Parts: sequence; structure tokens; C-alpha cells
Amino acid sequence: MPEERKETPEHPGPGAGGPAGARDAGLMSPIRAGTPVEAALTDEAWLSAMLDAEVALACAQARIGMIPWSSADAIAASARGWRCDPVMLARRAREAANPVVALVQELTREVAGRYPDAADDVHLGSTSQDILDTATMLLAAHALDLISDDLDRVCSALEGLAERHRDTPMAARTLTQHAVPTTFGLKAAGWLHAADGARQRLKALRTELPVQLGGAAGTLAAYHEYATLDGVKGRNGESAALELMSVFAEEVGLAEPVLPWHSAREPVARVCCELAVMAGVLGKFGTDVQNLVRTEVAEAVEPGAEGRGASSAMPQKRNPVLSALLVSAALQLPSHATVLLHCMAAEGERSAGAWHAEWQPLREALRIAGGAAYTAAELAEGLVPLSGAMARNLALTQGQIVAERLVVHLRSAVGKAEAKRHLGRIAASSAGGESFACAVRADPVVRESLSPDLLDEILDPAGYQGAAGELVDRALTHHRLHTRSASEAAAERGGTRPEPCERTPQ
Amino acid sequence: MPEERKETPEHPGPGAGGPAGARDAGLMSPIRAGTPVEAALTDEAWLSAMLDAEVALACAQARIGMIPWSSADAIAASARGWRCDPVMLARRAREAANPVVALVQELTREVAGRYPDAADDVHLGSTSQDILDTATMLLAAHALDLISDDLDRVCSALEGLAERHRDTPMAARTLTQHAVPTTFGLKAAGWLHAADGARQRLKALRTELPVQLGGAAGTLAAYHEYATLDGVKGRNGESAALELMSVFAEEVGLAEPVLPWHSAREPVARVCCELAVMAGVLGKFGTDVQNLVRTEVAEAVEPGAEGRGASSAMPQKRNPVLSALLVSAALQLPSHATVLLHCMAAEGERSAGAWHAEWQPLREALRIAGGAAYTAAELAEGLVPLSGAMARNLALTQGQIVAERLVVHLRSAVGKAEAKRHLGRIAASSAGGESFACAVRADPVVRESLSPDLLDEILDPAGYQGAAGELVDRALTHHRLHTRSASEAAAERGGTRPEPCERTPQ
Amino acid sequence: MPEERKETPEHPGPGAGGPAGARDAGLMSPIRAGTPVEAALTDEAWLSAMLDAEVALACAQARIGMIPWSSADAIAASARGWRCDPVMLARRAREAANPVVALVQELTREVAGRYPDAADDVHLGSTSQDILDTATMLLAAHALDLISDDLDRVCSALEGLAERHRDTPMAARTLTQHAVPTTFGLKAAGWLHAADGARQRLKALRTELPVQLGGAAGTLAAYHEYATLDGVKGRNGESAALELMSVFAEEVGLAEPVLPWHSAREPVARVCCELAVMAGVLGKFGTDVQNLVRTEVAEAVEPGAEGRGASSAMPQKRNPVLSALLVSAALQLPSHATVLLHCMAAEGERSAGAWHAEWQPLREALRIAGGAAYTAAELAEGLVPLSGAMARNLALTQGQIVAERLVVHLRSAVGKAEAKRHLGRIAASSAGGESFACAVRADPVVRESLSPDLLDEILDPAGYQGAAGELVDRALTHHRLHTRSASEAAAERGGTRPEPCERTPQ
Amino acid sequence: MPEERKETPEHPGPGAGGPAGARDAGLMSPIRAGTPVEAALTDEAWLSAMLDAEVALACAQARIGMIPWSSADAIAASARGWRCDPVMLARRAREAANPVVALVQELTREVAGRYPDAADDVHLGSTSQDILDTATMLLAAHALDLISDDLDRVCSALEGLAERHRDTPMAARTLTQHAVPTTFGLKAAGWLHAADGARQRLKALRTELPVQLGGAAGTLAAYHEYATLDGVKGRNGESAALELMSVFAEEVGLAEPVLPWHSAREPVARVCCELAVMAGVLGKFGTDVQNLVRTEVAEAVEPGAEGRGASSAMPQKRNPVLSALLVSAALQLPSHATVLLHCMAAEGERSAGAWHAEWQPLREALRIAGGAAYTAAELAEGLVPLSGAMARNLALTQGQIVAERLVVHLRSAVGKAEAKRHLGRIAASSAGGESFACAVRADPVVRESLSPDLLDEILDPAGYQGAAGELVDRALTHHRLHTRSASEAAAERGGTRPEPCERTPQ
Repeated sequence: MPEERKETPEHPGPGAGGPAGARDAGLMSPIRAGTPVEAALTDEAWLSAMLDAEVALACAQARIGMIPWSSADAIAASARGWRCDPVMLARRAREAANPVVALVQELTREVAGRYPDAADDVHLGSTSQDILDTATMLLAAHALDLISDDLDRVCSALEGLAERHRDTPMAARTLTQHAVPTTFGLKAAGWLHAADGARQRLKALRTELPVQLGGAAGTLAAYHEYATLDGVKGRNGESAALELMSVFAEEVGLAEPVLPWHSAREPVARVCCELAVMAGVLGKFGTDVQNLVRTEVAEAVEPGAEGRGASSAMPQKRNPVLSALLVSAALQLPSHATVLLHCMAAEGERSAGAWHAEWQPLREALRIAGGAAYTAAELAEGLVPLSGAMARNLALTQGQIVAERLVVHLRSAVGKAEAKRHLGRIAASSAGGESFACAVRADPVVRESLSPDLLDEILDPAGYQGAAGELVDRALTHHRLHTRSASEAAAERGGTRPEPCERTPQ
Repeated sequence: MPEERKETPEHPGPGAGGPAGARDAGLMSPIRAGTPVEAALTDEAWLSAMLDAEVALACAQARIGMIPWSSADAIAASARGWRCDPVMLARRAREAANPVVALVQELTREVAGRYPDAADDVHLGSTSQDILDTATMLLAAHALDLISDDLDRVCSALEGLAERHRDTPMAARTLTQHAVPTTFGLKAAGWLHAADGARQRLKALRTELPVQLGGAAGTLAAYHEYATLDGVKGRNGESAALELMSVFAEEVGLAEPVLPWHSAREPVARVCCELAVMAGVLGKFGTDVQNLVRTEVAEAVEPGAEGRGASSAMPQKRNPVLSALLVSAALQLPSHATVLLHCMAAEGERSAGAWHAEWQPLREALRIAGGAAYTAAELAEGLVPLSGAMARNLALTQGQIVAERLVVHLRSAVGKAEAKRHLGRIAASSAGGESFACAVRADPVVRESLSPDLLDEILDPAGYQGAAGELVDRALTHHRLHTRSASEAAAERGGTRPEPCERTPQ
Repeated sequence: MPEERKETPEHPGPGAGGPAGARDAGLMSPIRAGTPVEAALTDEAWLSAMLDAEVALACAQARIGMIPWSSADAIAASARGWRCDPVMLARRAREAANPVVALVQELTREVAGRYPDAADDVHLGSTSQDILDTATMLLAAHALDLISDDLDRVCSALEGLAERHRDTPMAARTLTQHAVPTTFGLKAAGWLHAADGARQRLKALRTELPVQLGGAAGTLAAYHEYATLDGVKGRNGESAALELMSVFAEEVGLAEPVLPWHSAREPVARVCCELAVMAGVLGKFGTDVQNLVRTEVAEAVEPGAEGRGASSAMPQKRNPVLSALLVSAALQLPSHATVLLHCMAAEGERSAGAWHAEWQPLREALRIAGGAAYTAAELAEGLVPLSGAMARNLALTQGQIVAERLVVHLRSAVGKAEAKRHLGRIAASSAGGESFACAVRADPVVRESLSPDLLDEILDPAGYQGAAGELVDRALTHHRLHTRSASEAAAERGGTRPEPCERTPQ
Repeated sequence: MPEERKETPEHPGPGAGGPAGARDAGLMSPIRAGTPVEAALTDEAWLSAMLDAEVALACAQARIGMIPWSSADAIAASARGWRCDPVMLARRAREAANPVVALVQELTREVAGRYPDAADDVHLGSTSQDILDTATMLLAAHALDLISDDLDRVCSALEGLAERHRDTPMAARTLTQHAVPTTFGLKAAGWLHAADGARQRLKALRTELPVQLGGAAGTLAAYHEYATLDGVKGRNGESAALELMSVFAEEVGLAEPVLPWHSAREPVARVCCELAVMAGVLGKFGTDVQNLVRTEVAEAVEPGAEGRGASSAMPQKRNPVLSALLVSAALQLPSHATVLLHCMAAEGERSAGAWHAEWQPLREALRIAGGAAYTAAELAEGLVPLSGAMARNLALTQGQIVAERLVVHLRSAVGKAEAKRHLGRIAASSAGGESFACAVRADPVVRESLSPDLLDEILDPAGYQGAAGELVDRALTHHRLHTRSASEAAAERGGTRPEPCERTPQ
């Protein structure tokens, strides 16, 4: 019988107590909570990247002579260390449908307070989209670098697994059923090769991320007008505005586009598609691990850590949390790609909604993908395959797993089709009672064609691996070739990359 | 020529400076920045709702006699005012793939520190999913209430527009071309009727949101075992665990499900689908407004506010930002629904990934939809239709817009098909030079059939509104009927709703 | 060494040989190939439904006196048995972006040839969208009826499974790991309850499918004008065009909408969302079956049929093809819903693209969902659960599966948290060697608290089913209640439904 | 009053009359109805491609000596001209969840009937997925070729438009509002550059499409076993099965993968992503055209053809049907990409559902994308820009469109920020009455800074095109460079591509 309660608990309604600036720090998105990529994509990071874009634009304009260096320096000095509240900006962003309008007002005020002469040179000739798109590409580039680093770890760990288990036999499963034998090395090589592909394409894409510069509607008109008014000439007789595009790209370290891309959004859509492909690759890895650690299969163990995989109810539980997180990422990424693909059908010189719909999905895609790469590295580095359990499961069907091999060897005697039918009948009739292997050994048709010794050899699953080992070697060779050339290319690139914001020679 | 620069600006790399707990406060999602629904769905709100669920569970267990009221009171007192860091929890959530495991540890520690005897009654017999799903439904219910309130405002404002402009003529456009006349009232009535439908369905859905209670794997086993061990009996001879489900639902004010729904995720998927439908309805409203405010059309003006719609480049700009935000929401919502639909194919008694993929998309869906409802209310309440411009545009095709009406009147003379062909020829040949109306008036076939006076009448677009006015009346009547019955129903409900956490009589 | 080849085989390039009217009959979509819903959604079916809509419109117009009955009869007689080539229409549909324009031309020609006086009354006052949307709703209604019938079979079969296996114990799995025991009956009851919900909602939705009638731009203007010109009055003083909407709805057996919905597309989006929810429900069923038939689990067998589940390579294979098809459907449906949700943001009185994007995804959604319901019925009716294997797997963790229950019983002695930690340690240390149950029996802490007899009882997994049986009963009761009320409602409806195309009394 | 009706029309229920093999020939998908890509992707085409794969596999096996050439020739001769009913196969595909099992049975029967000795060499060592995936890649390659050809036409037409209208001034619109002037040439150059990018990437992707060869579970085991049994050795000491992979790739003209990719589905996902990007590019083109042809804008006309764009209701209508179809394609493609991305998380060596879910979405994606490319070519080649209307609209805001330019020129006098505010005020106050240009000319601040002559120059919109012309030149140069290198590369490739099915030298 319930006792009397002493006091009425006052539990506030849901959501109550949320402070004014309360935020999302990953509580409902564990795949990325606390990972480097999360920290790289906060509102503060976006704000900082927008300031970087404004500073780089001023530097580029100073380099080509559109504004004095004193202005560029003043703008850089003002932006440096300046704290602008992202919550305030976020709310003012509702007025202009983007945060740059308010940011430019605040930055101009800051510069005007410290360097009055420079205030008029802030955001000169520019438009919100030049700044926001450039900032977004800077953050995407940074996130892709972090992701690439984690994919390097993933590949390196999987390379080790593939190599060490090149010849470890296990059951291959198709449509959830034991099919024929394979090796754990080939499974790992498959994960490796797919991760390798995703890694290479993300690295290639990263170098193509373009700077944005178009002015109010993609004609560079105000940049051109200011330059013309001040008698600034571009290189080779072209408009100074075109040179500005090139120098701006150098300043921020992004690629120079052929045209402004205010409403030509392939660069954004493509990044998101590649992230979704990568999430799919890691989702396949996670799905496979889940099936290996399943209680009844138990052919691998996820890396352990204190408290890892605990349940709030059951003491014995060691849940496969890393693979679950990878699967959760693969379920989310495709949808973000879909949004970005829809946003490509942008109207006119700047869309009224399609551009604005891009930002949050792209951010989510980058941080979920980043979290997935980080998680996959942890999983690949710590995954423990259990070859004993693999061998035990390989024997589970008592020989049925090599039924295809028996067909090969009976074909010359009874024909392929009849051999397949005959073994199908043996498999069906031996389902409940005696083992398939015994039934095969006792079968008159088989006995007539195959000697007991040969039959023993054929019925050994470990002997039916086909070209698995050679396929592992192919994948390893391919991986090493690409990894080496990437390193070499990076080393070569190292020496020649232009210093950002460098002074033009006098 | 560029001057020399005095000092090297040090602008840090993108993302640098992001503090450890840096977060997402809506900077990249202006549709919801600073809106009530955003504050209702922060990490802190989720944390608070999870505590609400733990407290309500304890109260429910006290009500049926599973634990003493002293424990329930102690847990409630401990949870009240307790500050648990969501960033810390978010990071520990990576270890268990959900935040409840760590939350229960921390809450137990807190209770143990203040009321040692009650610590063992925290989360008694429960599982992470009971707490997290219940918290999620509490937040969804709260968000749906906020959304319903904003949709009430939307409907009320559109009702006024439809009524005031019942007979204001304007051009209907199909496939971007002037088709026949319509009225602004009918357009507003269409927005109203669609918003009304979305509102009603969200309100209905809100009352169906279920509590979650299943225990480790949906059998209520530990609840049942504790109750049995303590000799607690349920009502009518059923297990006390079933009564617990019912009392728990009362405590939190959610519906009692027939079965635990750990891996039967219709409730979550359905909420997200309805939110996407609502976003589509408001996206259609936003799309229409965009086309009315288009420079060349100029038949309406978005509500103005200081700084609203400003450009960072162009002084004359008053961008239609509210409608742009509505369109941006409609582009994002469907994808979140897709994720939730995919997550329905959950494996076994709890999926390893599909459940975990739900939380963030559902949160995004709720806050974007909430932001859209809030924005739509602002737009609907302030939208200014310009009947003069509508009349001017109606005359733009110089009569072609009533060509269909001419067919009706020429049919008896020349047959419908020939009338249509004949007028098509007149329209085609008058494209460049004289007006269609003049050409029609001069046409021998027309002159033979229709008197000049009748022709004048026919050619007046304002006279060809069909049943537009009556359709507006239908929509208004339908709206008022539903609004009244909802109010009445709410009033009746008011008196009978059980007080949450009420004491069982002694 | 390869021999010489006698002649060069000429295999034509891919796709060669495709005849002019070559088509898609389901070869790449086995989920629906040859099912009733496929036949109900062919191009011919759409063509036939469009003719039905034209005939019903003429009948409705005759009923209210807008056209003579002789015309309606002539149009009906011409449409009946008339063969119009859908391939030709499909190609001409590219000219108008919809097939109705060409269809009306052809039908008018057909009528003119047989009943010259009636030709002018074909499609009178109408617009393409009135016909196409009405046809689509007719087909959707028919498809939903077929789907409902198959869901009836699904529910009926699952009801039997739940009832027969109410108390059959098996392991519950969470995150792929054995959690606590459950029953196969509860699993089946979960499938039943979800299928039941989907079935009820689709049936409800089917009765709400609206007819479309709006005229050129949703004002009913030409209908109104023709009626006015002929002095036809509507009921109760309203426009005859409004009465036409009502009578047309009766004629085709669809609901009468409050407003024309040319660019208010909730009806279409909602159908697709519900189909996706249903596919998710059946996808969960399929996913669960896959995990039961997995070689290592083997707790169920899919219904067998000659050749069912065969592999082209392996003789022993019996692939779980029905569940694989269900999973394939659940992967496809959400995306079609996404398209329909995106199409809601339609511009003006008829969109230029969004309407046109709806048709094929809706068709795909209906036929895949229909195929899934058909397949699920086959699977549910033939699924063979294997209770022996379930019992064997329940013992696999040698007692760990009831570790939670041990916590319940040790709590009073050592506290809940310590009991959980202690059992966690035993589970971890017994992983490799002796069984968990032996370790528990030998543990001093346990021995001190629990007698050997009680321990035996606790360690029996079959004894720890919580309220599973009662939950099964709840689901069965709920199902039967809803099924009965639906039958009763149908019986009552039976007598009152208006005969379509009935003659108005003279 | 309605007359009496003579007879009851019997219109059959919807869907009635659908013959047994009734199909989908594009009636509900006008974007692709009757286009070459549709004919290339029929069920018959898939069937034919699967036979091509079987024949090529036999040829490859003959080339390396695994089977006699007589068998390969017999299989090729049997497949050639053989008619297998796709409807029958589609239905039998439900039994195996794929059509290959039944196809192999039928083909084997066909071969056995004509060349008994060769029957055992049909599908030797192979698995369904080797055949179906290879066939799918063959069809994808063929479809990509057709698409590339149409994109060539698109680019060529847009090149002409960009060149001819390099300096044709028009209003740029951002967020639906006039922003600053641009040129039609730059708009066309933007379409060109995006189409160019899509084209290049699809061409690159086409060369990477891999053949599939893995055997039952990706180890090539049966191929290896047959070769070993017959003493066939591979090149360089590797397994003959690896050589088979290489020779098979040559035979069908697809790329040789590093590993079998039965459950590593990037190739498929990537194709679909690129198709979606292409559809987005063309959707942007379509969206822009829609806005140019809008009644109030009227700056362009879609290519006319007899009956093109007709309405079933309104005689005057010339609907922009080509752009509407492009928009409808862009709305559908992203969702198909989503499905393919979800399918990447495939389990084990062959998934039970994810593979099966790929086929129909990929087919839909290919044929909708192909229809879009075809339609875009028609639109680009026939689009008529109207420079007179562009000039007229440019003047619509009476000077506001160059307000940004006025800021540039007033900056030195009053400061940039003040100039922007000042012009904003003038724009706001001149909204209703006198023109902005007049107000500017009369404004004392302006008059003080700018001479009347300079003001005239500044206020001429045609003079404020920024670097538009130079940007057009950049895009044209880039396009021509890429087009030339592609042609050259193709020419070089021409001479060296290996003849498919070539005889190995004796």
C-alpha cells in the first residue's frame, strides 16, 4: 500500500528552464558529440570564418590596390580577437534571411570605433553571399581535412586487419544464409578498398572547393566600379575585378572558380553527395561488424573501454555501440544530400529559399560524417576478430557451405544441372537429422565419382577460398600505391603553396 | 599601386577559437533562431524532460506501491534544480550510444548524496529507451502545442484576408502564365484551408503521442518482477506492470499505448510526416507570396520592419525574407521525414542504429517546423495585398485572360472546338501588335454572334470569377466550424483532465 | 589452351532490339511483378480511369441539367470499349506536359464520329487537372482497397501466430545482443498491432480521397458560365458549379472537397506518407524475419514453394526472399513520399513542374506498397516459427539472459547498483570459460542471498517473461475490437451508399 | 430540367481491362516518354543485356581456356534472336528475388535444345549478381552515352546563346527582386558552365563503370575451382579467375574493378548522385526559363511547335512545357539518389533487400535524367530570348536597379554607409509617386556630388554590367578547351580500344 507523500514535487514543464541562449551541443547526436569536427563547425566557427573571409577580401583588395593596406590591416586587427555574439547575430539573421548583413554592420561599427578611416573599406563592393559561401567552403575544407585524417587511420587499421587475416577462413553470408567460405582478410580488404575510394575522392574534392566572389548579382559590378573609379587595372588588360577573384582565392586558400556560383550550387551538392557516399561506406562497415558481434555469431568483439556498451538495465550487456553509431550516421546522411540536390534548382541570380535551406543540412552532413570517420577509426583500430568462432561457424552447416564445390567436382560425372539438383535434394533431406557431410559421403552417386580422400579435401571449408588471398593482395597493393602517391604529391605541394595574405612585392 | 602593409594580420584558421563546449544556437538556421520552439528543444530541455520522465516514473511507482513515496519525493526533490552538464552527458553518450545510461548514474549519485535510502529506487526496473522516448514525446507534445498556437494565428490572419478580399479580382496563373481571373480571397482561402487541415491533424496527433514503458526488451519484466517480489498487485488481476504503464501515462500526460513501442516507430515517423505536410502547406504559402512580391508582379508586400529584408550590397532592396524562410523550411522537412521512415525498419527488440538515427532529425524537424509556423504567423498577419496592382496585371493580356469565357459564349454559334481554335488564332496573331480585345471586337465571327454590349461585359475580367466568392464562403464556414468545435472540445476537456502526479486516495 | 572459335557471335549492343512500344512490366521490381496492384496501375488503367472521369463528369452535368442525357449517354457509349493507344498518348503528353489534352482531342473525335451532336459536350468547362487528379484518386482508391484486403490477410495470419505462440519463450535481442527473454507471441503481436494501425489509417484515408473539380484555375468559372448561360440553377441558391462538384463526387464515389485542390496537394502527399509508414511497418516485419532465419539463429523458416529461394550458384540455398522483398520495399517508399512532400510547395493556381513530378512517384509508391502488402500476406500466412531452436538459443548465454532478474533478487541484499556491478563482473569473467550460471551458483554473495531452489527458478529463462502474455492479449483484444467495428461499419455503410450515375427523379 | 437517360452507361471500375501483361510505357512520366533513353531501358533491354553478360562470360571463359569455343559459340548463337518473355521472367523473379535464376534455367534449356554439349557451360561458376550487375552497368553505360550526346547538344546551343547575347543587358533578380543589371549572355554562360561540368563528370564516370565478377560470394571460388580442375593457369602465376575478371571486362567493354563489389555499392550510388546533380543543373536552367517566360516578365519564349503548350481549357495558353518537364525531373532525381545511398549499407557478402531495392530507382533515375537531357537540348536549341522586353523590364524600377552604383559614386562625398542609407531613403519615399531617377536627380546631396552628365551615365542600367562580358568569355574559353580535349582524347582512344570478344591469337 502506498505511503503518503510529504510534499508535492514541482517538476517544471518540458523545456522549461531553457536559458535564452540555450543550444545544441550534441546530446541528441552522439555520433559527433565531442569530436574534433563538431568543434570545427560551431556557430562560433562560422562567425570566425565569415570574419576570415572579410579580412581576406580586404587583404586581396589591398594587394591589387583597391583599398589602402592601412584599411586591410585595420580590418584584420579589428576582426582579430573581436567577440561578436552568435546568438544575437542568429536572431538578427531572421531580418535579412542571412547573418552577414548584421555581421557587416557590427564589424563596420567595430572598425569605425578603432580605425575611423578604414570603416568605409569594410565589405567593399561585396554581397552577403560572397562572404557566407566563402566561409562555408573554408569550414568545409577544414572539416574535410579532419575527415581525411580519420580516414587515413581507418585505412591504416583495416590494412593491418586485411594483411594479418589474409587467410583466416570464415563463412560468407548472402541473404543472411551461409553461402560459401571466404576469409576475414577479404572482408577487411573490402572495407579498406571502399574507405580508400571515399578518402581519395574527398581529398580530390577538397582541392576543388571554390572561393565565392560575384558581387550583388554575380557580375562583379561594384568591385569593378570601385576599381575603375580609382584607376586600378587588372592583369593582362582584364578587369581588376577578375584579378580580385584570383587573389582572393589565394588569400583564403581555396580554388578560383571560372564563374561566380551564387546560384550554381554543384560545389555544395557534390560535397554532400560524397559525404553521403562515405557514410554509406562506413555504414556498410558498421553493418558488417554488427552481424559479426551478434550473440549467435560472435566472430568479433568491438573495442572495449570502461563503461563502453553498458546498458541501463542489464548487467551482462556489452552493446556494439560504435557500429550502431556508424549505422545511425549512414541512415541520416543521404537525406542531407537530398536537400542539397533539391536546392540546386535555384532561381535567378540568388534564390529566395533554396540558398537558405543549404546551410544547416550541410553543417549536419559535415559533422555527422566527421563523427562517423572518427568513430570508424576507433572501431577499425580496436576491432578484435575471433578466428576460433569463425572456424566453429564455418562448420555449422556440416558441409553444406561447400555444396557449390561438390557441384564443380560432380559436373563431369552427372552434369552440372543434375549435380546441383542432386545436392539440393541431399541438403533438403538432411536438414533435420544426419549431417550433410555424412549424407554426401553415403550417397551412391557421390561415392561413384569421388574418392573418400578427395571428398575429405573437398568438404574442408578452409580449402575452398577461391582467389580470396590474391584479391586481398590486389586491394593492399592498390591501397599502398594510392597512399604513397598521395603522400608524395602532398610533399611536393608542400613547398609551393602560396603563403596566404602575402604582400605583393614593391 | 598598393602601399606597404604595416603588420601581418594573424587571422586564425577556420574554426579556430571554438571553445570546448561551443554549440549551435541557430546561426545557420534563421528559420528558427530565437523562436519559442528553439528554446523548447535545446539539449537542456531534453535533459530536463528526461529528468521529468524519471521523476514521473518514480511517482507512478509510488502510486501503485512499488516504491515508497519517500523515494519518489526524494527523487523529485533531487531532480528539481539539479544542474547536470549536457556537454559532459553528450560525450559520455558516445560510450552507451545514448545519454540515459550516464544520466542515470549521475542522478543516482545525486540522490544517494542527499537521500541515501532512495538511491536504489531511481530508474527502478527501467531501460534507457523508456526514459528517452518518453522525454522525446514530452518535448514533441510541447513543441506541437507551440506550433498549434502559431497555426491558430496563421489561420486567424488568413481568415481575415479571405474575408476582406472575398471579391478582389486578380489573375490566376497556371504554369506561370495568366490563365483566367480569380480573387485574392480565394487564394487566401486556399492557404487558410490547407493550414487549417494541418493544424487539426497536428492537434489530433498531439493527443495520441504515447508514453514509452517496456523495460529492457518490451516485456515489462523487471517492473513485473519487482512488483511481484513486493506483493504489489495490479488492477483487475492484471500485472502491476500494466497498471504502471497506465499510471505513468497519466503522470506525464501522454497517451497510454497498447504495447511498448521500442521498435515499432510509427508514432515518431507519423509526427515527422505531419510536420513535413505542414511545412509543405506553409511552403506553398511562401511560394505564392514570393510570386506576388516579385518586382514585375508587385501585387503584395511583405510586412515591413526596421532593417527587414535589407541587403548587404543594394540600398533599394526589400527582400521577401519571411517567404524565403518558409520556402527554406519546406525544402528541409521532407528529408527529415525520410530518415524517420527509414528508421521504422528497426531490428528485433531494439535496433542498433535506427533508434539512434531518429533523435536529431526529429529535433530538426520540430524546430524547423516550429520556426516555419512562427514565421508564417508573422507573414500572414502583416501581408499587404495591393488590389490596384492586381487590377493592373489583370489587364496585362488585354483580354486574353477571358478567352475561355469567349469560348463559352461562342459555342452555340460555331461549336466549342472551333471557338477554341478561332480564339487561339486571334491570340497568336495579336501577340505583337494590336490588343487581343481589339482584335476580338473586330473579328467578323465574334461580331456576328455577340453584341458589343455583351462583348464588353464578357471582356471584363472582374466579371469572370466563377464561384470564387462562394468557395471562399465554404472555406470560411468550414474553418469556423472546426475552430469552434475544437474550442468547445478543449473547454469540455478542461474540467476532466486528471491532475498529473496526484496522490492515490488513502 | 583455348580452341579456335568457329564464328563471331553477334551480340547486339545493350538495349538494342527494344521495340518501339517496349515497356516496364516489373522485371526490375519483383516486389510487385504480377501482383493485382500492378495490373491496377498500368498505363491502360490510367487511361481507363481518365475516361471514367470524363464519363462521370458528363453524367453529373446531365444530372444537374447542364448537358442533355443524350450527350452523357453518347460520351459513355463512346468511351466504353474504345481503345486508345497509351504509347501514342504518352508521346503526345510531352507537348502539353500532361496526357489529358491529347486524350480529350481523341475522345472528342471518337464521339464526333458516332454521335456528332454530343461532341461539344465532351470535357465541358473542364481542365486537364480535373480529369487527371480525379483519375489518380480513383486508381489510388482501388489500390488502397487491394492493399487493405492484403493487410486483412496479414493481420489475420499474425493474429493466429500471436495467439498460438502467446507463451513460446525466445531471446529478445537489443542492439543485436541477447537482452532478456520474450515470447514469439509478443513479437507477432507487435507486428500485428503495427499492421493493424497501418490498415486502419489507410482505410480511413481511402474514404477521404477527394474528387477534383475546379475548372481552368480553381474558380469553377467555365462550369459556372455554361450553367448560367443555360439558366441552370444550383441547390439552395448556390452556383450550379458547386452542385456539380457534389454530384461529380457521387458519380465517381470519391469525397467532395471543400475547395478545388489543384495546387493544395495534401491529399496526394498524405497518401504517400501513409504508404511509406505501411512499408516501414512491413519492413520491420521483414527485417525481423531475416534475423530469425539467419543461419546461426534459425528460429523460423519462410514459407517454402518449389524453386522459392533458389540460388543460381549454390544448391543448398533457401534464401529468405519474401522478407528480402519486404526490406527492398521499405528502402524505396520513403523517397517517393519525399518527392510528394516537395511537390506541395506548388506555385500559383497550377505549378509548372511540381504537379507533373507527382504522378510517377505516386504510382511507384502505390505499386511497391501494394506488392509489399501482397508479399507480407504470403509471408505471414506461411511463416514457420521453430520453438525448439528458440529454446536452444535462449540457453546460449548460459544464464546471462536473466542477469537483470538476478539484480532484482539481489537488490535487497546488496543494493541495486552493487548487484548490477557484481553480476557484470561475473559475466565478464565467465565469458571464456565456465558458464555464467555455474559462476553465479558458485558466487558467495549470491549463495548467501538466494537458496539453490530459488536460484534454479530465477535462472530459468522461460520463467522471466514479465507481462508478455498479457500484452499479447491486449493486442489481440484491440485488434478484434477494431476489426469488428470496421466490419460493422462496412455493413451499415453498405445499404446507404448512393448508386453512382443514378438518374435524378423526374 | 434534366432529360431522361436512355441507357445506363457501363463504365468499368478503375483499372479494369488491364490485360495480363499490361505495362508502363511512360504515360505518367512525360519527361521520358518516347525518348531514346526510355527505349534503352525497357525490360526487354535488361533481358538483352543479361544475355549479353552471359555470352560475354562464356567468350571470356573460352578465351582463357575454361570452356571450349564451341560452347561459347553455342551460347552466343542460342542467345542471339532468342525471345524470352520478360513478363514471365518478372513473375518468376519473385521466387528468387531476382530474375537471373529463372533466366539461367530458360537459357540453359534453350542451349540444351540446340547444342546439348554446351548446356553445362552456361553460367559456369557464376552467380546471379555477376550477371545482373554487369547487365546494369552495360545499360547505364549506354544510357550515359545517350545522355552525353544530348548534353553535347545542350552545351553547343547554350554556347551560341552566351556568345550572341554576351552584351545583352537585362535585370538580375535576387530573392525575386530586381538587384543590379546583368546580361543574358552571362545567364546563358552560367547554364553552359554547369551543364559542361555535369557532362564532363558523367563522361568520366562512364569510363569507370565496372564489370561485376565475384562468384557466389565474391571469392571467385567456383571460377577458380573449375579452372584449377581443368589445369587452366592465369597470367603471371595468378589465379585464372583473376584473369577471367580482366578478360570479361574487355569482352563487355567495362572497367576492371580491383575487387568484386557485390556488397560495395559505390559505383551504383555514385552514378545516381551524378545523375541527380545533372538533373539539378538542368532544373536550374528550367527554373530560370520559367521565370523568363512568366506573363509579367515575358523576356523569352520557349520553342514553339504545333500543339506545344496547349491547354485543354484556355485557347490563348502557350504553356512553358519543356521547362516544366525539366523542373519535374529535378524534383524526382534526388530521391532516387537517396535510395541508392541507403542501399550502400549492405550486409555481408550480399544483402537481403538492399541490392534488390536498387534496380528500379536506378532505372527511373537513368530514364528521367535521360529524358531531362533530351528535353533540355530541345529547349536550349529553341529558346528565344527577347532583348526588347529585357530592356523594358530593366527600366521598370526607374533607376533603383543601379542604386548600388550610386553608392559607389557617392562614397567619397558622404561615406559608403551614409550613401547607402540615403539612397535607401530615396528609394523608400519614391515608391509610390515620382520615379527614383527623378528623385535622385532632384536630391541636393546627389546634385552636390555628381554632375548631371555623370548622373545620366550612372543611371543607365546598360552601363553597369561589371565584368559580365569577360566572365562570359571565361566560360566560353573553358568550355571550348574541355570540349576540344575531350574530342582529341576520344580520337586517340578510338584506335586503341580492344575489340570486344576478340579471339586470342593462336
